[in-house]
Amino acid sequence: MIILGVDPGFSFTGYCIASQQGSTLRLLDYGVLKLNPSKSLSERVGIFHDHMAERIVRHQVTAIALETSFLGKNAQSFLKLGYLRGILYLLADKHKAELMEFAPREVKMAVTGYGGADKEQIKTFLQRLFPQLNVEKLDLTDAIAITLCGLWKGPVDRRMRELYHAR
Amino acid sequence: MIILGVDPGFSFTGYCIASQQGSTLRLLDYGVLKLNPSKSLSERVGIFHDHMAERIVRHQVTAIALETSFLGKNAQSFLKLGYLRGILYLLADKHKAELMEFAPREVKMAVTGYGGADKEQIKTFLQRLFPQLNVEKLDLTDAIAITLCGLWKGPVDRRMRELYHAR
Repeated sequence: MIILGVDPGFSFTGYCIASQQGSTLRLLDYGVLKLNPSKSLSERVGIFHDHMAERIVRHQVTAIALETSFLGKNAQSFLKLGYLRGILYLLADKHKAELMEFAPREVKMAVTGYGGADKEQIKTFLQRLFPQLNVEKLDLTDAIAITLCGLWKGPVDRRMRELYHAR
Repeated sequence: MIILGVDPGFSFTGYCIASQQGSTLRLLDYGVLKLNPSKSLSERVGIFHDHMAERIVRHQVTAIALETSFLGKNAQSFLKLGYLRGILYLLADKHKAELMEFAPREVKMAVTGYGGADKEQIKTFLQRLFPQLNVEKLDLTDAIAITLCGLWKGPVDRRMRELYHAR
């Protein structure tokens, strides 16, 4: 399983690609994509698509993980966030990757063992796991946490679904 | 200008492709796309993408028109509507089509001359314009109205923008 975790946004998208073999966790790629607000919305959606598509192909991603989004103060921003999420659903379909979506509590639980963990606790945990990264400075806390949740919880969820359907 | 007007939705998407030369309005294609809810969300997004992409290429669409969506009772449905809208923004970018978005009032105004028109008035108008169609039965009122708004108001908006930038 090679997983791409994404924390999408028009001003700032964090992403992380990782895999795990046995107890070896490998961070294959990570970064931040900023979309130039002077470009049209269509162009920005196109750039987001191409950026993620290129990485999915290069790293042979087999699953994409997202955190469930909730409505904030601005309904139109929430709708536009849907544009980027829709692109990830499309890419999952086109590249035969599984799309996994997790509630924020599930992400926190998977990463720290406690669903009510705050951002600082998650940062501390990630910093220990990846001492070579400056997690704080890179602002990749959410993207890495979503990726790890996909790596660790995704297979468990899949087995649960299989068991359920086998009954 | 060959315009694709879309009224997107996971249960039901109405679309219409039209062009106008002089006073001759041509309806090139129209229809309804229903997505099978038993398929995964990624698959449905993929089917929506392919269906629209195929029509954009076949009819050499130069502009895509959408009506601005507003938050209804269900925020998660609103976010998912964003997935389909995002695909249309992507297709506009990939096929060098202009993406035009209109407020519901603008659509009503363009079609009936009155921004407060109700759905029945719009239906009556469209039925007169296209006597060969059963607008009511096809449930394409919104898609056709958005397409006509794009055909008639799109070029005016563009000239206004050009004038504004020329100053």
